[in-house]
Amino acid sequence: MSYLVTGASRGIGLELVKQLLALPKSQVTKVIALSRGAPPAALQELLDKHTSRSIHIAASVDNTESVKQAAQAVEAQLGDAGLDVLINNAGVLGEVSAEGARFIPPEEMLRVLDVNVVGPHRVTAAFLPLLEKGKQKKVINMFVKNSDSIPSIGCADVRRRSSTMGSIAMSEYFTFAPVPPYKISKTALHMLNKQYASEYEGKGFTFLAVSPGWLKTDLGGPHADLDVDVGVRDVIRIILEATPAQNGNAVSIKVSGNDRYDGKEIPW
Amino acid sequence: MSYLVTGASRGIGLELVKQLLALPKSQVTKVIALSRGAPPAALQELLDKHTSRSIHIAASVDNTESVKQAAQAVEAQLGDAGLDVLINNAGVLGEVSAEGARFIPPEEMLRVLDVNVVGPHRVTAAFLPLLEKGKQKKVINMFVKNSDSIPSIGCADVRRRSSTMGSIAMSEYFTFAPVPPYKISKTALHMLNKQYASEYEGKGFTFLAVSPGWLKTDLGGPHADLDVDVGVRDVIRIILEATPAQNGNAVSIKVSGNDRYDGKEIPW
Ligand SMILES: NC(=O)c1ccc[n+]([C@@H]2O[C@H](COP(=O)([O-])OP(=O)(O)OC[C@H]3O[C@@H](n4cnc5c(N)ncnc54)[C@H](OP(=O)(O)O)[C@@H]3O)[C@@H](O)[C@H]2O)c1
Ligand SMILES: NC(=O)c1ccc[n+]([C@@H]2O[C@H](COP(=O)([O-])OP(=O)(O)OC[C@H]3O[C@@H](n4cnc5c(N)ncnc54)[C@H](OP(=O)(O)O)[C@@H]3O)[C@@H](O)[C@H]2O)c1
Repeated sequence: MSYLVTGASRGIGLELVKQLLALPKSQVTKVIALSRGAPPAALQELLDKHTSRSIHIAASVDNTESVKQAAQAVEAQLGDAGLDVLINNAGVLGEVSAEGARFIPPEEMLRVLDVNVVGPHRVTAAFLPLLEKGKQKKVINMFVKNSDSIPSIGCADVRRRSSTMGSIAMSEYFTFAPVPPYKISKTALHMLNKQYASEYEGKGFTFLAVSPGWLKTDLGGPHADLDVDVGVRDVIRIILEATPAQNGNAVSIKVSGNDRYDGKEIPW
Repeated sequence: MSYLVTGASRGIGLELVKQLLALPKSQVTKVIALSRGAPPAALQELLDKHTSRSIHIAASVDNTESVKQAAQAVEAQLGDAGLDVLINNAGVLGEVSAEGARFIPPEEMLRVLDVNVVGPHRVTAAFLPLLEKGKQKKVINMFVKNSDSIPSIGCADVRRRSSTMGSIAMSEYFTFAPVPPYKISKTALHMLNKQYASEYEGKGFTFLAVSPGWLKTDLGGPHADLDVDVGVRDVIRIILEATPAQNGNAVSIKVSGNDRYDGKEIPW
Protein backbone atom coordinates (compact mmCIF):
# COMPACT_ATOMS: atom_id res chain seq x y z
CA MET A 1 0.00 0.00 0.00
CA SER A 2 1.22 3.52 -0.83
CA TYR A 3 0.88 6.45 1.53
CA LEU A 4 1.26 10.16 0.98
CA VAL A 5 1.84 12.45 3.97
CA THR A 6 1.76 16.25 3.73
CA GLY A 7 3.69 18.39 6.22
CA ALA A 8 6.33 15.66 6.59
CA SER A 9 9.11 18.01 7.69
CA ARG A 10 8.40 17.78 11.42
CA GLY A 11 5.90 16.98 14.13
CA ILE A 12 3.11 14.51 13.41
CA GLY A 13 3.92 14.34 9.69
CA LEU A 14 7.54 13.36 10.28
CA GLU A 15 6.50 10.77 12.86
CA LEU A 16 3.90 9.34 10.46
CA VAL A 17 6.59 8.87 7.81
CA LYS A 18 8.87 7.23 10.39
CA GLN A 19 6.29 4.81 11.75
CA LEU A 20 4.88 3.96 8.32
CA LEU A 21 8.36 3.08 7.07
CA ALA A 22 8.86 0.92 10.17
CA LEU A 23 5.92 -1.27 9.10
CA PRO A 24 6.70 -4.34 6.99
CA LYS A 25 6.96 -3.99 3.23
CA SER A 26 3.86 -6.15 2.88
CA GLN A 27 1.84 -3.41 4.57
CA VAL A 28 3.59 -0.31 3.28
CA THR A 29 5.12 -0.37 -0.17
CA LYS A 30 5.74 3.33 -0.61
CA VAL A 31 5.73 6.46 1.52
CA ILE A 32 5.63 9.78 -0.28
CA ALA A 33 6.71 12.61 1.98
CA LEU A 34 5.56 16.08 0.95
CA SER A 35 7.12 19.14 2.53
CA ARG A 36 7.99 22.67 1.55
CA GLY A 37 11.53 22.97 0.24
CA ALA A 38 14.33 20.48 0.88
CA PRO A 39 13.80 17.79 3.55
CA PRO A 40 15.23 18.75 6.93
CA ALA A 41 17.88 16.44 8.42
CA ALA A 42 15.53 14.17 10.38
CA LEU A 43 13.39 13.51 7.32
CA GLN A 44 16.41 13.12 5.05
CA GLU A 45 17.77 10.46 7.40
CA LEU A 46 14.54 8.45 7.09
CA LEU A 47 14.56 8.82 3.32
CA ASP A 48 18.19 7.64 3.14
CA LYS A 49 17.41 4.62 5.31
CA HIS A 50 14.52 3.54 3.10
CA THR A 51 15.55 4.63 -0.39
CA SER A 52 13.47 2.03 -2.22
CA ARG A 53 10.28 2.72 -0.29
CA SER A 54 10.35 6.48 0.19
CA ILE A 55 10.06 9.53 -2.02
CA HIS A 56 10.28 13.20 -1.15
CA ILE A 57 8.42 15.81 -3.13
CA ALA A 58 8.46 19.53 -2.42
CA ALA A 59 5.06 21.24 -2.30
CA SER A 60 3.27 23.98 -0.39
CA VAL A 61 -0.35 23.16 0.32
CA ASP A 62 -1.26 26.84 -0.01
CA ASN A 63 0.06 26.91 -3.58
CA THR A 64 -2.27 25.32 -6.13
CA GLU A 65 0.37 25.06 -8.85
CA SER A 66 2.90 23.35 -6.59
CA VAL A 67 0.28 20.82 -5.43
CA LYS A 68 -0.66 20.04 -9.03
CA GLN A 69 2.98 19.54 -9.92
CA ALA A 70 3.41 17.24 -6.91
CA ALA A 71 0.47 15.15 -8.15
CA GLN A 72 2.10 14.83 -11.56
CA ALA A 73 5.39 13.80 -9.96
CA VAL A 74 3.63 11.19 -7.82
CA GLU A 75 1.73 9.86 -10.82
CA ALA A 76 5.01 9.44 -12.68
CA GLN A 77 6.26 7.34 -9.76
CA LEU A 78 3.17 5.27 -8.94
CA GLY A 79 1.60 4.98 -12.38
CA ASP A 80 -1.39 2.68 -12.74
CA ALA A 81 -1.14 1.35 -9.20
CA GLY A 82 -2.42 4.72 -8.02
CA LEU A 83 -2.24 6.06 -4.49
CA ASP A 84 -3.81 4.12 -1.63
CA VAL A 85 -3.84 6.51 1.34
CA LEU A 86 -3.63 10.30 1.44
CA ILE A 87 -2.93 11.93 4.80
CA ASN A 88 -3.68 15.65 4.83
CA ASN A 89 -1.52 16.52 7.80
CA ALA A 90 0.09 19.89 6.98
CA GLY A 91 -1.42 22.64 9.08
CA VAL A 92 -0.75 25.81 10.99
CA LEU A 93 -1.90 26.99 14.40
CA GLY A 94 -2.00 30.63 13.39
CA GLU A 95 -1.87 33.59 15.65
CA VAL A 96 -2.64 33.25 19.33
CA SER A 97 -4.60 36.08 20.91
CA ALA A 98 -5.21 36.15 24.62
CA GLU A 99 -7.20 39.34 24.01
CA GLY A 100 -9.69 37.53 21.83
CA ALA A 101 -10.84 36.94 18.28
CA ARG A 102 -11.34 40.62 17.72
CA PHE A 103 -7.60 41.18 17.73
CA ILE A 104 -6.83 38.57 15.09
CA PRO A 105 -5.90 40.36 11.85
CA PRO A 106 -8.38 39.32 9.14
CA GLU A 107 -5.51 38.46 6.82
CA GLU A 108 -4.19 36.03 9.43
CA MET A 109 -7.56 34.30 9.68
CA LEU A 110 -7.63 34.00 5.91
CA ARG A 111 -4.10 32.54 5.86
CA VAL A 112 -5.03 29.85 8.40
CA LEU A 113 -8.14 28.98 6.40
CA ASP A 114 -5.99 28.84 3.27
CA VAL A 115 -3.51 26.33 4.73
CA ASN A 116 -5.85 24.26 6.94
CA VAL A 117 -9.00 24.10 4.81
CA VAL A 118 -8.24 25.06 1.22
CA GLY A 119 -4.91 23.19 1.59
CA PRO A 120 -6.54 19.77 2.12
CA HIS A 121 -9.00 20.65 -0.66
CA ARG A 122 -6.12 21.44 -3.06
CA VAL A 123 -4.31 18.21 -2.20
CA THR A 124 -7.42 16.00 -2.22
CA ALA A 125 -8.62 17.44 -5.53
CA ALA A 126 -5.22 16.98 -7.16
CA PHE A 127 -4.73 13.42 -5.92
CA LEU A 128 -8.26 12.08 -6.40
CA PRO A 129 -7.55 10.64 -9.86
CA LEU A 130 -4.65 8.69 -8.31
CA LEU A 131 -6.75 7.64 -5.30
CA GLU A 132 -9.44 6.34 -7.65
CA LYS A 133 -6.83 4.01 -9.14
CA GLY A 134 -5.62 2.93 -5.69
CA LYS A 135 -6.98 -0.04 -3.73
CA GLN A 136 -7.60 1.58 -0.35
CA LYS A 137 -9.07 4.96 -1.31
CA LYS A 138 -8.52 6.43 2.15
CA VAL A 139 -8.23 10.16 2.80
CA ILE A 140 -7.32 11.28 6.30
CA ASN A 141 -7.83 14.87 7.45
CA MET A 142 -6.18 15.96 10.70
CA PHE A 143 -8.92 17.23 12.96
CA VAL A 144 -9.12 18.36 16.57
CA LYS A 145 -11.39 16.49 18.92
CA ASN A 146 -14.34 18.48 20.09
CA SER A 147 -13.29 21.66 18.38
CA ASP A 148 -16.85 22.56 19.19
CA SER A 149 -16.35 22.69 22.91
CA ILE A 150 -12.92 24.28 22.88
CA PRO A 151 -14.18 27.85 22.40
CA SER A 152 -16.19 27.57 25.58
CA ILE A 153 -12.91 27.45 27.45
CA GLY A 154 -12.69 31.09 28.39
CA CYS A 155 -9.82 32.66 30.27
CA ALA A 156 -11.40 31.82 33.62
CA ASP A 157 -11.57 28.14 32.71
CA VAL A 158 -8.03 28.21 31.44
CA ARG A 159 -6.92 29.59 34.77
CA ARG A 160 -8.94 27.02 36.67
CA ARG A 161 -7.66 24.17 34.56
CA SER A 162 -4.08 25.30 34.64
CA SER A 163 -4.15 25.47 38.41
CA THR A 164 -5.67 22.01 38.78
CA MET A 165 -3.05 20.73 36.42
CA GLY A 166 -0.19 22.17 38.40
CA SER A 167 2.29 24.83 37.47
CA ILE A 168 1.46 25.22 33.85
CA ALA A 169 2.05 28.81 32.86
CA MET A 170 -0.91 30.69 31.37
CA SER A 171 1.12 31.46 28.28
CA GLU A 172 1.56 27.76 27.65
CA TYR A 173 -2.15 27.19 27.69
CA PHE A 174 -2.62 30.05 25.33
CA THR A 175 -0.69 28.24 22.65
CA PHE A 176 -3.58 25.80 22.61
CA ALA A 177 -6.70 27.64 23.67
CA PRO A 178 -7.21 31.16 22.30
CA VAL A 179 -6.65 30.41 18.64
CA PRO A 180 -9.90 31.41 16.93
CA PRO A 181 -8.72 30.98 13.33
CA TYR A 182 -7.40 27.49 14.12
CA LYS A 183 -10.63 26.29 15.67
CA ILE A 184 -12.69 27.83 12.89
CA SER A 185 -10.45 26.21 10.30
CA LYS A 186 -10.70 22.75 11.85
CA THR A 187 -14.49 22.99 12.05
CA ALA A 188 -14.51 23.96 8.39
CA LEU A 189 -12.16 21.06 7.63
CA HIS A 190 -14.63 18.66 9.25
CA MET A 191 -17.28 19.97 6.86
CA LEU A 192 -14.92 19.65 3.90
CA ASN A 193 -14.32 16.04 4.92
CA LYS A 194 -18.08 15.44 5.07
CA GLN A 195 -18.63 16.99 1.67
CA TYR A 196 -16.08 14.82 -0.05
CA ALA A 197 -17.35 11.80 1.88
CA SER A 198 -20.90 12.36 0.72
CA GLU A 199 -19.83 12.80 -2.89
CA TYR A 200 -17.73 9.63 -2.87
CA GLU A 201 -20.15 7.60 -0.78
CA GLY A 202 -20.57 4.10 -2.16
CA LYS A 203 -17.46 4.35 -4.31
CA GLY A 204 -15.10 2.52 -1.98
CA PHE A 205 -13.71 5.69 -0.43
CA THR A 206 -13.12 6.38 3.26
CA PHE A 207 -12.83 10.05 4.11
CA LEU A 208 -11.97 10.30 7.78
CA ALA A 209 -11.34 13.25 10.09
CA VAL A 210 -8.87 11.98 12.66
CA SER A 211 -8.07 13.65 15.94
CA PRO A 212 -4.51 12.64 16.85
CA GLY A 213 -4.76 13.83 20.46
CA TRP A 214 -2.97 16.81 21.94
CA LEU A 215 0.61 15.96 21.03
CA LYS A 216 3.97 17.46 21.88
CA THR A 217 5.03 19.10 18.63
CA ASP A 218 5.87 22.67 17.69
CA LEU A 219 2.14 23.19 17.23
CA GLY A 220 0.96 21.32 20.32
CA GLY A 221 3.62 22.84 22.55
CA PRO A 222 5.66 21.21 25.31
CA HIS A 223 2.75 20.85 27.73
CA ALA A 224 0.61 18.73 25.44
CA ASP A 225 -0.91 15.50 26.79
CA LEU A 226 1.06 12.92 24.85
CA ASP A 227 4.36 12.35 23.13
CA VAL A 228 4.05 12.50 19.38
CA ASP A 229 4.92 8.83 18.87
CA VAL A 230 2.09 7.72 21.17
CA GLY A 231 -0.56 9.68 19.29
CA VAL A 232 0.79 8.79 15.86
CA ARG A 233 0.85 5.08 16.71
CA ASP A 234 -2.88 5.15 17.25
CA VAL A 235 -3.50 7.35 14.23
CA ILE A 236 -1.85 4.63 12.14
CA ARG A 237 -4.02 1.96 13.80
CA ILE A 238 -7.09 4.03 12.93
CA ILE A 239 -5.95 4.36 9.31
CA LEU A 240 -5.19 0.65 8.96
CA GLU A 241 -8.55 -0.38 10.45
CA ALA A 242 -10.63 2.26 8.63
CA THR A 243 -13.40 0.97 6.38
CA PRO A 244 -15.86 2.69 4.03
CA ALA A 245 -18.52 2.20 6.72
CA GLN A 246 -16.79 5.06 8.57
CA ASN A 247 -16.81 7.35 5.55
CA GLY A 248 -17.39 10.96 6.61
CA ASN A 249 -16.88 10.33 10.30
CA ALA A 250 -14.54 11.97 12.76
CA VAL A 251 -12.67 9.64 15.07
CA SER A 252 -10.21 10.19 17.86
CA ILE A 253 -7.31 8.13 19.14
CA LYS A 254 -7.58 5.62 21.96
CA VAL A 255 -4.97 5.51 24.69
CA SER A 256 -5.52 2.71 27.16
CA GLY A 257 -6.01 3.92 30.71
CA ASN A 258 -6.56 7.51 29.55
CA ASP A 259 -10.20 8.53 29.60
CA ARG A 260 -9.55 11.71 27.61
CA TYR A 261 -8.62 9.45 24.73
CA ASP A 262 -11.36 6.87 24.60
CA GLY A 263 -11.31 6.27 20.86
CA LYS A 264 -14.96 7.06 20.44
CA GLU A 265 -16.33 8.49 17.24
CA ILE A 266 -16.71 12.25 17.61
CA PRO A 267 -20.37 13.23 17.30
CA TRP A 268 -21.38 16.24 15.28
CA MET B 1 -32.13 51.48 18.73
CA SER B 2 -29.56 51.65 15.91
CA TYR B 3 -29.09 48.86 13.39
CA LEU B 4 -26.30 48.21 10.90
CA VAL B 5 -26.95 45.86 7.97
CA THR B 6 -24.20 44.68 5.60
CA GLY B 7 -25.04 43.61 2.05
CA ALA B 8 -27.93 46.06 1.95
CA SER B 9 -27.95 46.42 -1.84
CA ARG B 10 -30.39 43.57 -2.52
CA GLY B 11 -31.97 40.36 -1.26
CA ILE B 12 -32.28 39.84 2.48
CA GLY B 13 -30.14 42.88 3.34
CA LEU B 14 -32.33 45.26 1.36
CA GLU B 15 -35.48 43.74 2.85
CA LEU B 16 -34.03 44.05 6.36
CA VAL B 17 -33.41 47.76 5.79
CA LYS B 18 -36.94 48.17 4.43
CA GLN B 19 -38.70 46.36 7.28
CA LEU B 20 -36.54 47.96 9.97
CA LEU B 21 -37.38 51.42 8.64
CA ALA B 22 -41.06 50.45 8.65
CA LEU B 23 -40.91 49.92 12.43
CA PRO B 24 -41.83 52.89 14.64
CA LYS B 25 -39.15 55.41 15.56
CA SER B 26 -39.41 54.30 19.17
CA GLN B 27 -38.07 50.90 18.15
CA VAL B 28 -35.65 51.85 15.39
CA THR B 29 -33.86 55.18 15.63
CA LYS B 30 -31.28 54.61 12.91
CA VAL B 31 -30.57 52.12 10.12
CA ILE B 32 -27.10 52.10 8.65
CA ALA B 33 -27.03 50.37 5.29
CA LEU B 34 -23.65 49.11 4.13
CA SER B 35 -23.10 48.08 0.55
CA ARG B 36 -20.34 48.11 -2.01
CA GLY B 37 -20.40 51.26 -4.14
CA ALA B 38 -23.37 53.55 -4.59
CA PRO B 39 -26.81 52.37 -3.41
CA PRO B 40 -28.86 50.78 -6.16
CA ALA B 41 -32.25 52.39 -6.96
CA ALA B 42 -34.35 50.28 -4.58
CA LEU B 43 -32.09 51.08 -1.63
CA GLN B 44 -31.77 54.73 -2.62
CA GLU B 45 -35.55 55.01 -2.61
CA LEU B 46 -35.70 53.74 0.98
CA LEU B 47 -32.94 56.10 2.03
CA ASP B 48 -34.73 59.04 0.43
CA LYS B 49 -37.98 58.12 2.16
CA HIS B 50 -36.33 58.01 5.59
CA THR B 51 -33.59 60.61 5.39
CA SER B 52 -33.48 61.32 9.11
CA ARG B 53 -33.31 57.67 10.17
CA SER B 54 -31.10 56.10 7.48
CA ILE B 55 -27.48 56.33 6.44
CA HIS B 56 -25.66 54.65 3.60
CA ILE B 57 -21.97 53.80 3.83
CA ALA B 58 -19.95 52.08 1.12
CA ALA B 59 -17.82 49.14 2.23
CA SER B 60 -16.70 45.75 0.97
CA VAL B 61 -16.62 43.12 3.68
CA ASP B 62 -13.61 41.48 2.02
CA ASN B 63 -11.58 44.66 2.32
CA THR B 64 -10.22 45.33 5.80
CA GLU B 65 -9.41 48.97 5.16
CA SER B 66 -12.86 49.78 3.79
CA VAL B 67 -14.52 48.12 6.80
CA LYS B 68 -12.34 50.12 9.20
CA GLN B 69 -13.22 53.32 7.38
CA ALA B 70 -16.91 52.41 7.57
CA ALA B 71 -16.59 51.96 11.34
CA GLN B 72 -15.04 55.42 11.63
CA ALA B 73 -17.81 56.93 9.54
CA VAL B 74 -20.46 55.24 11.69
CA GLU B 75 -18.75 56.39 14.87
CA ALA B 76 -18.80 59.95 13.58
CA GLN B 77 -22.57 59.59 13.12
CA LEU B 78 -23.55 57.69 16.26
CA GLY B 79 -20.94 58.97 18.69
CA ASP B 80 -21.34 58.00 22.33
CA ALA B 81 -24.68 56.28 21.80
CA GLY B 82 -22.80 53.51 20.05
CA LEU B 83 -24.33 50.85 17.83
CA ASP B 84 -27.06 48.58 19.15
CA VAL B 85 -27.44 45.81 16.59
CA LEU B 86 -25.01 44.58 13.93
CA ILE B 87 -26.37 42.29 11.22
CA ASN B 88 -23.64 40.49 9.27
CA ASN B 89 -25.74 39.71 6.23
CA ALA B 90 -23.40 40.16 3.23
CA GLY B 91 -22.46 36.83 1.73
CA VAL B 92 -21.83 34.96 -1.49
CA LEU B 93 -22.96 31.54 -2.66
CA GLY B 94 -19.80 30.89 -4.61
CA GLU B 95 -19.37 28.48 -7.43
CA VAL B 96 -21.82 25.67 -7.96
CA SER B 97 -20.36 22.37 -9.07
CA ALA B 98 -22.63 19.50 -9.99
CA GLU B 99 -19.45 17.47 -10.55
CA GLY B 100 -18.42 17.84 -6.94
CA ALA B 101 -16.08 19.60 -4.54
CA ARG B 102 -13.05 18.36 -6.45
CA PHE B 103 -13.86 20.71 -9.31
CA ILE B 104 -14.08 23.83 -7.20
CA PRO B 105 -11.01 25.97 -7.87
CA PRO B 106 -9.12 26.43 -4.57
CA GLU B 107 -9.04 30.18 -5.13
CA GLU B 108 -12.83 30.17 -5.34
CA MET B 109 -13.13 28.33 -2.03
CA LEU B 110 -10.78 30.87 -0.47
CA ARG B 111 -12.82 33.77 -1.86
CA VAL B 112 -16.04 32.40 -0.36
CA LEU B 113 -14.32 31.92 3.00
CA ASP B 114 -12.99 35.46 2.73
CA VAL B 115 -16.43 37.02 2.21
CA ASN B 116 -18.58 34.70 4.36
CA VAL B 117 -16.28 34.04 7.33
CA VAL B 118 -13.47 36.58 7.42
CA GLY B 119 -16.00 39.21 6.30
CA PRO B 120 -18.17 38.94 9.44
CA HIS B 121 -14.94 38.81 11.48
CA ARG B 122 -13.71 42.05 9.87
CA VAL B 123 -17.01 43.79 10.47
CA THR B 124 -17.52 42.48 14.01
CA ALA B 125 -13.97 43.35 15.04
CA ALA B 126 -14.23 46.86 13.61
CA PHE B 127 -17.64 47.59 15.18
CA LEU B 128 -17.11 46.00 18.61
CA PRO B 129 -16.00 49.23 20.25
CA LEU B 130 -19.24 50.83 19.04
CA LEU B 131 -21.31 47.81 20.09
CA GLU B 132 -19.77 47.99 23.57
CA LYS B 133 -21.16 51.51 23.87
CA GLY B 134 -24.57 50.42 22.56
CA LYS B 135 -27.47 49.26 24.71
CA GLN B 136 -28.46 46.07 22.91
CA LYS B 137 -25.09 44.56 22.03
CA LYS B 138 -26.58 42.16 19.49
CA VAL B 139 -24.58 40.65 16.64
CA ILE B 140 -26.45 38.57 14.07
CA ASN B 141 -24.65 36.25 11.66
CA MET B 142 -26.60 34.85 8.72
CA PHE B 143 -26.40 31.10 8.94
CA VAL B 144 -27.99 28.21 7.08
CA LYS B 145 -30.13 25.77 9.01
CA ASN B 146 -28.69 22.34 9.23
CA SER B 147 -25.70 23.07 7.03
CA ASP B 148 -24.52 19.86 8.59
CA SER B 149 -27.04 17.70 6.87
CA ILE B 150 -27.06 19.48 3.52
CA PRO B 151 -23.96 17.75 2.18
CA SER B 152 -25.62 14.39 2.61
CA ILE B 153 -28.05 15.39 -0.12
CA GLY B 154 -26.35 13.66 -3.01
CA CYS B 155 -27.53 13.80 -6.58
CA ALA B 156 -29.87 10.85 -6.07
CA ASP B 157 -31.65 12.65 -3.24
CA VAL B 158 -31.85 15.81 -5.25
CA ARG B 159 -33.49 13.89 -8.04
CA ARG B 160 -35.88 12.21 -5.64
CA ARG B 161 -36.78 15.46 -3.93
CA SER B 162 -37.18 17.40 -7.13
CA SER B 163 -39.58 14.83 -8.49
CA THR B 164 -41.69 14.80 -5.34
CA MET B 165 -41.73 18.56 -5.48
CA GLY B 166 -42.99 18.70 -9.01
CA SER B 167 -41.34 20.03 -12.10
CA ILE B 168 -38.38 21.70 -10.55
CA ALA B 169 -35.48 21.49 -12.93
CA MET B 170 -32.33 19.79 -11.64
CA SER B 171 -30.30 22.84 -12.49
CA GLU B 172 -32.43 24.89 -10.14
CA TYR B 173 -31.72 22.58 -7.27
CA PHE B 174 -28.06 22.76 -8.03
CA THR B 175 -28.01 26.43 -7.25
CA PHE B 176 -28.75 25.41 -3.68
CA ALA B 177 -27.26 22.00 -3.10
CA PRO B 178 -23.79 21.37 -4.58
CA VAL B 179 -22.03 24.41 -3.19
CA PRO B 180 -19.21 23.00 -1.08
CA PRO B 181 -17.45 26.30 -0.33
CA TYR B 182 -20.73 27.87 0.79
CA LYS B 183 -21.57 25.07 3.20
CA ILE B 184 -18.04 24.98 4.54
CA SER B 185 -18.08 28.74 5.00
CA LYS B 186 -21.38 28.75 6.90
CA THR B 187 -20.18 25.97 9.22
CA ALA B 188 -17.06 28.03 9.87
CA LEU B 189 -19.24 31.11 10.45
CA HIS B 190 -21.17 29.22 13.12
CA MET B 191 -17.88 28.53 14.86
CA LEU B 192 -16.83 32.19 14.53
CA ASN B 193 -20.14 33.14 16.13
CA LYS B 194 -19.47 30.72 18.99
CA GLN B 195 -15.97 32.05 19.53
CA TYR B 196 -17.08 35.64 19.84
CA ALA B 197 -20.01 34.54 22.00
CA SER B 198 -17.75 32.71 24.42
CA GLU B 199 -15.38 35.65 24.67
CA TYR B 200 -18.18 38.14 25.32
CA GLU B 201 -20.21 35.84 27.56
CA GLY B 202 -21.50 37.66 30.61
CA LYS B 203 -20.87 41.07 29.09
CA GLY B 204 -24.40 41.74 27.91
CA PHE B 205 -23.73 40.59 24.36
CA THR B 206 -25.92 38.33 22.24
CA PHE B 207 -24.11 36.72 19.33
CA LEU B 208 -26.67 34.82 17.32
CA ALA B 209 -26.42 32.71 14.18
CA VAL B 210 -29.77 33.13 12.45
CA SER B 211 -31.07 30.95 9.67
CA PRO B 212 -33.48 33.07 7.63
CA GLY B 213 -35.00 30.13 5.77
CA TRP B 214 -34.54 29.35 2.11
CA LEU B 215 -35.64 32.64 0.58
CA LYS B 216 -36.25 33.84 -2.97
CA THR B 217 -33.30 36.11 -3.62
CA ASP B 218 -30.51 36.07 -6.21
CA LEU B 219 -28.69 33.68 -3.89
CA GLY B 220 -31.65 31.50 -2.93
CA GLY B 221 -32.96 31.31 -6.49
CA PRO B 222 -36.53 31.44 -7.74
CA HIS B 223 -37.49 28.02 -6.37
CA ALA B 224 -36.72 28.80 -2.76
CA ASP B 225 -39.32 28.00 -0.10
CA LEU B 226 -40.37 31.48 0.93
CA ASP B 227 -40.64 35.03 -0.29
CA VAL B 228 -37.92 37.23 1.10
CA ASP B 229 -40.33 39.41 3.10
CA VAL B 230 -41.73 36.37 4.95
CA GLY B 231 -38.32 35.16 6.08
CA VAL B 232 -37.06 38.62 6.94
CA ARG B 233 -40.15 39.38 9.03
CA ASP B 234 -39.31 36.49 11.30
CA VAL B 235 -35.59 37.30 11.33
CA ILE B 236 -36.55 40.71 12.72
CA ARG B 237 -38.78 39.07 15.35
CA ILE B 238 -35.86 36.87 16.36
CA ILE B 239 -33.57 39.88 16.63
CA LEU B 240 -36.08 41.91 18.67
CA GLU B 241 -36.71 39.02 21.07
CA ALA B 242 -33.07 37.91 21.39
CA THR B 243 -31.58 37.96 24.87
CA PRO B 244 -28.07 37.26 26.21
CA ALA B 245 -29.37 33.85 27.38
CA GLN B 246 -29.23 32.82 23.72
CA ASN B 247 -25.65 34.04 23.28
CA GLY B 248 -23.75 31.70 20.93
CA ASN B 249 -26.81 29.83 19.73
CA ALA B 250 -28.08 29.25 16.23
CA VAL B 251 -31.78 29.79 15.68
CA SER B 252 -34.05 29.44 12.71
CA ILE B 253 -37.18 31.24 11.65
CA LYS B 254 -40.68 30.08 12.50
CA VAL B 255 -43.42 30.08 9.89
CA SER B 256 -46.78 29.03 11.23
CA GLY B 257 -48.18 25.96 9.57
CA ASN B 258 -44.81 25.12 7.95
CA ASP B 259 -43.02 22.29 9.73
CA ARG B 260 -39.75 22.96 7.89
CA TYR B 261 -39.64 26.26 9.74
CA ASP B 262 -40.45 25.37 13.31
CA GLY B 263 -38.35 28.08 14.95
CA LYS B 264 -36.42 25.60 17.07
CA GLU B 265 -32.88 26.29 18.15
CA ILE B 266 -30.47 24.51 15.81
CA PRO B 267 -28.48 21.95 17.77
CA TRP B 268 -24.73 21.61 17.28
N1 LIG C 1 -0.06 18.62 17.82
C1 LIG C 1 -1.30 18.53 18.18
O1 LIG C 1 -1.60 18.50 19.38
C2 LIG C 1 -2.41 18.41 17.19
C3 LIG C 1 -3.70 18.13 17.67
C4 LIG C 1 -4.75 18.00 16.75
C5 LIG C 1 -4.49 18.14 15.38
N2 LIG C 1 -3.23 18.43 14.95
C6 LIG C 1 -3.03 18.60 13.51
O2 LIG C 1 -2.02 17.74 13.03
C7 LIG C 1 -1.33 18.36 11.94
C8 LIG C 1 0.16 18.38 12.21
O3 LIG C 1 0.37 19.10 13.41
P1 LIG C 1 1.78 19.15 14.12
O4 LIG C 1 1.50 19.18 15.57
O5 LIG C 1 2.68 18.12 13.56
O6 LIG C 1 2.27 20.61 13.66
P2 LIG C 1 3.76 21.17 13.43
O7 LIG C 1 4.71 20.45 14.30
O8 LIG C 1 3.65 22.65 13.56
O9 LIG C 1 4.04 20.79 11.90
C9 LIG C 1 3.24 21.35 10.91
C10 LIG C 1 3.61 20.73 9.59
O10 LIG C 1 2.78 21.31 8.57
C11 LIG C 1 3.62 21.83 7.56
N3 LIG C 1 3.06 22.99 6.87
C12 LIG C 1 2.57 24.14 7.41
N4 LIG C 1 2.18 24.97 6.45
C13 LIG C 1 2.40 24.34 5.27
C14 LIG C 1 2.21 24.68 3.91
N5 LIG C 1 1.65 25.86 3.55
N6 LIG C 1 2.58 23.79 2.96
C15 LIG C 1 3.10 22.61 3.29
N7 LIG C 1 3.33 22.23 4.57
C16 LIG C 1 2.97 23.09 5.54
C17 LIG C 1 4.89 22.21 8.28
O11 LIG C 1 5.93 22.36 7.33
P3 LIG C 1 7.17 23.39 7.56
O12 LIG C 1 8.14 22.64 8.44
O13 LIG C 1 7.65 23.65 6.18
O14 LIG C 1 6.61 24.61 8.26
C18 LIG C 1 5.05 21.01 9.19
O15 LIG C 1 5.54 19.91 8.48
C19 LIG C 1 -1.94 19.74 11.80
O16 LIG C 1 -2.95 19.72 10.81
C20 LIG C 1 -2.57 19.99 13.15
O17 LIG C 1 -3.63 20.91 13.10
C21 LIG C 1 -2.19 18.56 15.82
N1 LIG D 1 -31.44 33.38 0.39
C1 LIG D 1 -31.39 32.32 1.17
O1 LIG D 1 -32.12 31.34 0.95
C2 LIG D 1 -30.45 32.28 2.33
C3 LIG D 1 -30.55 31.19 3.21
C4 LIG D 1 -29.69 31.13 4.32
C5 LIG D 1 -28.78 32.16 4.52
N2 LIG D 1 -28.69 33.19 3.64
C6 LIG D 1 -27.67 34.20 3.89
O2 LIG D 1 -28.24 35.49 3.94
C7 LIG D 1 -27.30 36.45 3.47
C8 LIG D 1 -27.92 37.29 2.36
O3 LIG D 1 -28.31 36.41 1.33
P1 LIG D 1 -29.20 36.87 0.10
O4 LIG D 1 -30.05 35.72 -0.24
O5 LIG D 1 -29.79 38.19 0.35
O6 LIG D 1 -28.05 36.99 -1.04
P2 LIG D 1 -27.99 37.94 -2.33
O7 LIG D 1 -29.36 38.27 -2.80
O8 LIG D 1 -27.05 37.29 -3.28
O9 LIG D 1 -27.31 39.28 -1.74
C9 LIG D 1 -26.02 39.20 -1.23
C10 LIG D 1 -25.67 40.53 -0.61
O10 LIG D 1 -24.33 40.42 -0.08
C11 LIG D 1 -23.58 41.48 -0.64
N3 LIG D 1 -22.15 41.15 -0.77
C12 LIG D 1 -21.59 40.07 -1.37
N4 LIG D 1 -20.25 40.14 -1.32
C13 LIG D 1 -19.95 41.29 -0.65
C14 LIG D 1 -18.75 41.93 -0.28
N5 LIG D 1 -17.56 41.39 -0.55
N6 LIG D 1 -18.83 43.11 0.39
C15 LIG D 1 -20.02 43.64 0.70
N7 LIG D 1 -21.19 43.10 0.35
C16 LIG D 1 -21.15 41.94 -0.31
C17 LIG D 1 -24.19 41.75 -1.99
O11 LIG D 1 -23.77 43.01 -2.45
P3 LIG D 1 -23.61 43.33 -4.04
O12 LIG D 1 -25.00 43.68 -4.51
O13 LIG D 1 -22.66 44.48 -4.04
O14 LIG D 1 -23.07 42.10 -4.69
C18 LIG D 1 -25.66 41.67 -1.63
O15 LIG D 1 -26.09 42.84 -1.00
C19 LIG D 1 -26.07 35.68 3.03
O16 LIG D 1 -25.13 35.66 4.04
C20 LIG D 1 -26.63 34.28 2.80
O17 LIG D 1 -25.65 33.28 2.93
C21 LIG D 1 -29.50 33.27 2.56
